[in-house]
Amino acid sequence: MYRTHTCGELRLEHVNQHVTLSGWVQKIRNLGAMTFIDLRDRYGITQLVVEESASKDIKDRIAGLGREFVIQVNGKVVERTSKNNKIPTGDIEIIIESIDVLSPSEVPPFTIEDNSDGGDEIRMKYRYLDLRRQVVRKNLELRHRMAHLIRNYLDNLRFMEVETPVLIKSTPEGARDFVVPSRMNQGQFYALPQSPQTFKQLLMVAGFDRYYQIVKCFRDEDLRADRQPEFTQIDCEMSFVERDDVLDIFEGLIRHLFKEIRGIDIPALQRMTWHDAMEYYGCDKPDLRFDMKFVDLTAQAKHRDFAVFNASEYVGAICATGCASYTRKQLDELTDFVKRPQVGAKGLVYVKYNEDGTLKSSVDKFYNEDDLKRWAESCQAKPGDLILILCGPKNKTLPQLCELRLEMGNRLGLRDKDVFKPLWVVDFPLLEWDEETQRFYAMHHPFTSPKPEDTDMMESNPGAVRANAYDMVINGVEIGGGSIRIHDSQLQQRMFKCLGFTPEQADKQFGFLLNAFKYGAPPHGGIAFGFDRLVSMFAGLDSIRDTIAFPKNNSGRDVMIDSPSEISEEQFKELGIRLQS
Amino acid sequence: MYRTHTCGELRLEHVNQHVTLSGWVQKIRNLGAMTFIDLRDRYGITQLVVEESASKDIKDRIAGLGREFVIQVNGKVVERTSKNNKIPTGDIEIIIESIDVLSPSEVPPFTIEDNSDGGDEIRMKYRYLDLRRQVVRKNLELRHRMAHLIRNYLDNLRFMEVETPVLIKSTPEGARDFVVPSRMNQGQFYALPQSPQTFKQLLMVAGFDRYYQIVKCFRDEDLRADRQPEFTQIDCEMSFVERDDVLDIFEGLIRHLFKEIRGIDIPALQRMTWHDAMEYYGCDKPDLRFDMKFVDLTAQAKHRDFAVFNASEYVGAICATGCASYTRKQLDELTDFVKRPQVGAKGLVYVKYNEDGTLKSSVDKFYNEDDLKRWAESCQAKPGDLILILCGPKNKTLPQLCELRLEMGNRLGLRDKDVFKPLWVVDFPLLEWDEETQRFYAMHHPFTSPKPEDTDMMESNPGAVRANAYDMVINGVEIGGGSIRIHDSQLQQRMFKCLGFTPEQADKQFGFLLNAFKYGAPPHGGIAFGFDRLVSMFAGLDSIRDTIAFPKNNSGRDVMIDSPSEISEEQFKELGIRLQS
Repeated sequence: MYRTHTCGELRLEHVNQHVTLSGWVQKIRNLGAMTFIDLRDRYGITQLVVEESASKDIKDRIAGLGREFVIQVNGKVVERTSKNNKIPTGDIEIIIESIDVLSPSEVPPFTIEDNSDGGDEIRMKYRYLDLRRQVVRKNLELRHRMAHLIRNYLDNLRFMEVETPVLIKSTPEGARDFVVPSRMNQGQFYALPQSPQTFKQLLMVAGFDRYYQIVKCFRDEDLRADRQPEFTQIDCEMSFVERDDVLDIFEGLIRHLFKEIRGIDIPALQRMTWHDAMEYYGCDKPDLRFDMKFVDLTAQAKHRDFAVFNASEYVGAICATGCASYTRKQLDELTDFVKRPQVGAKGLVYVKYNEDGTLKSSVDKFYNEDDLKRWAESCQAKPGDLILILCGPKNKTLPQLCELRLEMGNRLGLRDKDVFKPLWVVDFPLLEWDEETQRFYAMHHPFTSPKPEDTDMMESNPGAVRANAYDMVINGVEIGGGSIRIHDSQLQQRMFKCLGFTPEQADKQFGFLLNAFKYGAPPHGGIAFGFDRLVSMFAGLDSIRDTIAFPKNNSGRDVMIDSPSEISEEQFKELGIRLQS
Repeated sequence: MYRTHTCGELRLEHVNQHVTLSGWVQKIRNLGAMTFIDLRDRYGITQLVVEESASKDIKDRIAGLGREFVIQVNGKVVERTSKNNKIPTGDIEIIIESIDVLSPSEVPPFTIEDNSDGGDEIRMKYRYLDLRRQVVRKNLELRHRMAHLIRNYLDNLRFMEVETPVLIKSTPEGARDFVVPSRMNQGQFYALPQSPQTFKQLLMVAGFDRYYQIVKCFRDEDLRADRQPEFTQIDCEMSFVERDDVLDIFEGLIRHLFKEIRGIDIPALQRMTWHDAMEYYGCDKPDLRFDMKFVDLTAQAKHRDFAVFNASEYVGAICATGCASYTRKQLDELTDFVKRPQVGAKGLVYVKYNEDGTLKSSVDKFYNEDDLKRWAESCQAKPGDLILILCGPKNKTLPQLCELRLEMGNRLGLRDKDVFKPLWVVDFPLLEWDEETQRFYAMHHPFTSPKPEDTDMMESNPGAVRANAYDMVINGVEIGGGSIRIHDSQLQQRMFKCLGFTPEQADKQFGFLLNAFKYGAPPHGGIAFGFDRLVSMFAGLDSIRDTIAFPKNNSGRDVMIDSPSEISEEQFKELGIRLQS
């Protein structure tokens, strides 16, 4: 037997017991007379002691140890004279009676401690060592716990976990597919799923009523900082539901997670239309940890001789509480910020509502104090506040103002990682016009249902049709999204037509779904959450990378196993493919 | 709201309530004055009634209904006059007060009933309709329930679920890989995992201590009747364990499942060596639902003038209880059975131990009654029993006798699907010699540890080395298998050498694992269960196909979505590959 207890288990009550522990040598402190060893495993750290009276054999073995050696010790639990209340085992230590090295270790490329990781490159190459660090492992433990809570929550509500296939069919709609050449059907390819969307809808047609799956999905996209070619979704679908049935169940799930994991009671979620989100926050995923809503000053700002405002489609403001004291330098920084190419504004107008009630702005030449006062009133500004104004074409200015708002939130410390403000954004547009290809694309996906009251406009004014779709947004991050689906094959055909599919194309790609709808499809809808991102939010991480045991880098490579890699001539031959020369 | 209750929910206590139900029309019985409709959903069937006094509107709508229409009804719950005690809702029915068609249905290609499936081809093409049949859906419900029980069992024992990557690296050892061309690393390929073996070992090196995952795995093999290119494993690994620690935990899991799912108390599992399994049952997965152990008659049978036995390396017998009365015809059938090419024996010798104590055999010419009596004693045969004997080279005769034993088990009704006899088969050979390639292959995989007492023979007599490996076998089917792993990079190098790898080849393919072992690897071991097969065993199915929602056929095709399929010229170009012409 390798151990009687783990390294996180022993307490005062075990004093005088003879125990066996196994684990990794975290640290060795040789104090001359005595030697102390911190022994580590997943469950904790236990202090081992070699006393001066120990045998020569034990002392010799101890002398040969180094960091990260795996050892097994027998010994007696004793109460410590100087206790360590920072660790749960801090009341006791083990007097070593015998010791064996189970596995020696070379000097690791970085020390296995919370604050030492040797940099991203080396962490990823030696991921199995990186994962030994508690700061990394606890993210994976959180992930496990969240998956477990989610499954139990959904199981209690009679959701059935069903595994959908991984080797499916490539479809040109959506992002790029990973494909898999078929040996048994040469010249043909499977595709890896970007989501189990069509399969979960088929499960609804099959009468499964409530489905879920925590499932790997794949997208062959150029990887931005926080994307992975394989990622995990919590994928769910329900039959005989309307939108609010879905929202109620899944906001219940999120509130349950916050309660269980973080001990936070989240109130019922606000439901904001996409239109309001754009109008007041300039994006479809507003960060509601702070208010600072946009105020439309367009009408108020256009009655003087300021050509810049007069020529603008939209003039919008935010009010930064308590920032009237901003210096020239600070205001210049903000101007520089909005003029960065990533933001793209032409300039920034400010109005200081001074503590003494006077107003001072960068457009004093054009507007008198009464004008400014009216703006301040519109912005509900109080003395001491700073009003920041951007202008230009509305569809460009709203996102710029959004960036400025988030920057002010950062500067004012209003984006606390331990505060969570989830909301639903609803009533998205059904379709998005793409200038380049001169066609509409589905904003969510082609199976999203239009709102019934908008269906009539699908042919006459497709751009105005709202979808019965919803996103869950937390702290400015889209955590999940879904919709009520089309369950009628005629409506689905109209949708494909809006997207520019010929009936033949629609049939070739989605014929099985259109056919399925002919045999009694229930009204249904669902949602999918990005599990990696959800975990990273609960863990307080900026990136999803450390919620994944073995992530890939930005070139899609696993540098630890050195993949992707070449394959053999025989494999090419069997698959009937070759490289393009 | 589409429903107040499901179709499986209403009871006498609901009488007089007004309810809303939604579901599929299972059956319509028009009795002139009254019409009865069976409304179906996942949860059950509820009877709806249209009374003679119903409105013309309701009657008209009912007249338009057909099987598999999705409808929504409002109505009043009433007590039935003639109750149906075959269904849980059989005490009540619903008087329809209003009805809406949510979705009409064309006439389905087969009726959605337990005994009607239209044949395999059509079932698979219309899998979404096939899944509506209760006999199919209940297998998926069982699968869900088993996954849930397994997860909770392992979570309670502090196993952590960790997702391992799907896009990994192709290795020539083992079965054929599915590969995925990389667009971002042109000319290179990912491979889909045949199992997460190396990753779970790395998690042990990382100190995760106890890992599990219910995970899709992939093998590009020519598909036999009961193989799927993608299949699901319950994959587990533990650190600081010896063999019996692993066996105890996972036999606990299986016993837990039998108790929870089937209500059966399974006693502690027998542990049989591979050698004994081969010697007494002729295969490494004995069906222990019946005894009929092999008896080695080689020594006893060689003292007379029967050239066939005298020339045989091995003469083995089984005793079929109560079969002495077999007719000539029955004995001829058995002879034909063993002579089939799939079995391959040259002939069959029998000895009838008649009820009157006399003995009669097909080799009476060569052996006297005393000889036969001694055989019968060796076989522990009693009057009324039949002894069946095969002979030949031992490695051929044992599997032939195994087939004969199973055939007799079938004939005697000893292989009851509701009886379960799990066991562990242990101490497999480490290596298997392959005549064709003239080299050893790992019987399990190259990471399996030899038994410590056999390690010395790895170079001198590799074929004799036993592995610290184990299979769980239930009713003649291998349900799971695993081993204590090598955790020492030098021993791992020796193993690769046994398999004919040069150090360079070993390093290229498994360098990351060999490297990992240099930084303190704990002793570890694990197991993987075939989840599809486990579910099929609990469901009493002969095939794994109906434990999978969307299976592929024997050519690896999904005939419902028509996959695999062609990809576009643009995809070929982006991936840098083309078809071989």
